[in-house]
Amino acid sequence: MAFSNLFATCNIPVAFRGSTRFFRLSSSRRRLLYPDCRFNRPPQTTYRWFARLTTGGSSATGPEDALVFEHYVAGKVSRINKALELAVPLRHPLRIHESMRYTLLGHGKRVPGIMCLVSCELVGGDESWAMPAACAMEMVHAMSLIYDDLPCLDDDDLRRGKPTNHRAFDEGTALLAGEALLALVFELMAGMEEVPASRVVRAMLELGQAAGSEGMAAGEIMDKLSEGREDISLEELEYIHKHKSSIGRAATVCGAIIGGANEDEIERLREFGTKVGLLYQVIDDVLDVTRTSKELGKDAGSDLAKDKATFPKFMGIEGAKKYAFRLLDEILLKLSYFNDERAAPPRRLASFFVNRQK
Amino acid sequence: MAFSNLFATCNIPVAFRGSTRFFRLSSSRRRLLYPDCRFNRPPQTTYRWFARLTTGGSSATGPEDALVFEHYVAGKVSRINKALELAVPLRHPLRIHESMRYTLLGHGKRVPGIMCLVSCELVGGDESWAMPAACAMEMVHAMSLIYDDLPCLDDDDLRRGKPTNHRAFDEGTALLAGEALLALVFELMAGMEEVPASRVVRAMLELGQAAGSEGMAAGEIMDKLSEGREDISLEELEYIHKHKSSIGRAATVCGAIIGGANEDEIERLREFGTKVGLLYQVIDDVLDVTRTSKELGKDAGSDLAKDKATFPKFMGIEGAKKYAFRLLDEILLKLSYFNDERAAPPRRLASFFVNRQK
Repeated sequence: MAFSNLFATCNIPVAFRGSTRFFRLSSSRRRLLYPDCRFNRPPQTTYRWFARLTTGGSSATGPEDALVFEHYVAGKVSRINKALELAVPLRHPLRIHESMRYTLLGHGKRVPGIMCLVSCELVGGDESWAMPAACAMEMVHAMSLIYDDLPCLDDDDLRRGKPTNHRAFDEGTALLAGEALLALVFELMAGMEEVPASRVVRAMLELGQAAGSEGMAAGEIMDKLSEGREDISLEELEYIHKHKSSIGRAATVCGAIIGGANEDEIERLREFGTKVGLLYQVIDDVLDVTRTSKELGKDAGSDLAKDKATFPKFMGIEGAKKYAFRLLDEILLKLSYFNDERAAPPRRLASFFVNRQK
Repeated sequence: MAFSNLFATCNIPVAFRGSTRFFRLSSSRRRLLYPDCRFNRPPQTTYRWFARLTTGGSSATGPEDALVFEHYVAGKVSRINKALELAVPLRHPLRIHESMRYTLLGHGKRVPGIMCLVSCELVGGDESWAMPAACAMEMVHAMSLIYDDLPCLDDDDLRRGKPTNHRAFDEGTALLAGEALLALVFELMAGMEEVPASRVVRAMLELGQAAGSEGMAAGEIMDKLSEGREDISLEELEYIHKHKSSIGRAATVCGAIIGGANEDEIERLREFGTKVGLLYQVIDDVLDVTRTSKELGKDAGSDLAKDKATFPKFMGIEGAKKYAFRLLDEILLKLSYFNDERAAPPRRLASFFVNRQK
């Protein structure tokens, strides 16, 4: 399947990729070169979510810079959404595809996908090379959300303000949709015809390790086993969160591999991805206890109800926030190795994660 | 992960691979060259299952030929079992690995794995090249068994004479074990360092298509939706069974790709794999209504209890058996294109599937 061809229509001209020059053009020329921003604007909720990237963080330099970044990210979300739509058309058997699309094409924040694209560009790669991998990351993420919400795990009824997949369909369909999403990852990754096969194979190895019994699934099972335990250590808690968020690490590393990173860059971005994933989870824990279901668009307080191991439970809400800011400092230090302009988007993303409100 | 190295110790010398010459050696020399048969004999139940390969089928030529084939298959099962044991060691977190191993290392018939190895050798490849892929096929198969048995799908309590995975552990663990098995497939396939990356990528694409929403998962959902329907057509029934058994097709095609098959060989083996998979499912349906739970080692009559679409329901038991024999004829015709000696194992396998009793 020549999946990569699907992205040919939504490429950014090379001259403007990985830089802010594009946004200094006149609006008519901008529309001509980059029609996605105008005609295929991402869902408003997602767009607004990213607009908040402008409201804080240590690398925000002013309203103009914030506007540039807002457009940069909105474009990425738009192209990821379009690519996902193309990757899972509504075909026979309808029910499983409806179920897959229900979670995948919902108003996701597209964090794993963006991290993959940003990482690819950071090392000098082309966004279109990494787009199938970015979609693959979103699919692994969607699968993990569907499974997490099932009655035998977290038993949640609400996700992004809508009924969870097994509530909208049924448990059997949700189970098969998750399985099919993970299988589609093979097709997407193996279909990257523009990328050398050796890079594709290496990226798939990375993704497999991140999703498996020593990655995401390990975090999930330890999280499940930790419910109700009082004697959990900080080390165990970090293990759970690092592993549950390993898709963020995989997205970053895969993007770098596809973009042609050298070994040194790959290792630096692996640490960056690990820390960003952990930071995201710490803030997730904080929001679960400080926000309402309406504000979050999912069941708030569910960690507390299930007596789960969380950072606020271990070190208090303020302690967890401080910990997140310490992680942010480490992340910014990791990025200082890279080209300053290219490293601006990942810096801004990490800064936003600390300040996010949902 | 240099997974392929794991198989270095259990290789058959090239001179004896893909032929029956090896079995004409003295028993002492045989033991020296091929210690697996002696020291790592597969579990007796599996061994006896394959011994029945000798009892029927159109290509059985006599007791001597049967004995040769028995040893050939037993060796393959033994090496697959050893490779699977190495692929999923009992490590942290214990519970998920125990659950994965429970289904994966049970007394499976190893049909997908054998089909992968046999197909690789049929086109002149080396068994050791395809061993990681054979393990990957067994993992996809194990995942599908775990999920099929869950309460939200078939709700079975017994599999291969033992409690099903979610009965031995719990539903959440079974769900995560299945997810982790599918993720491990990425690692195994991407870890085939001896095989050119282009072949690995193509095999992964094939596997993804076979497991996904237009392959195995499509068959599963249509099977689920067909429960209780009286107006099902033979076309729909074939769709369900062909798709549910697509892992057999994928195993055959992946083995061929890894073995270096040309396009013509790949297409012929794709049809061979599809028909063998369908044949296996037809006989599965027949056995479900003609055998007891004790004889099968799993819940007999479960299709009938769930009012599922099956071949016996559509065309009667005798009609289904006749259909299976017609498929066998087509399969043997497909194999007549290949080297007669190399094609003996797949011929014998197909013949056995028609005559199997469990």
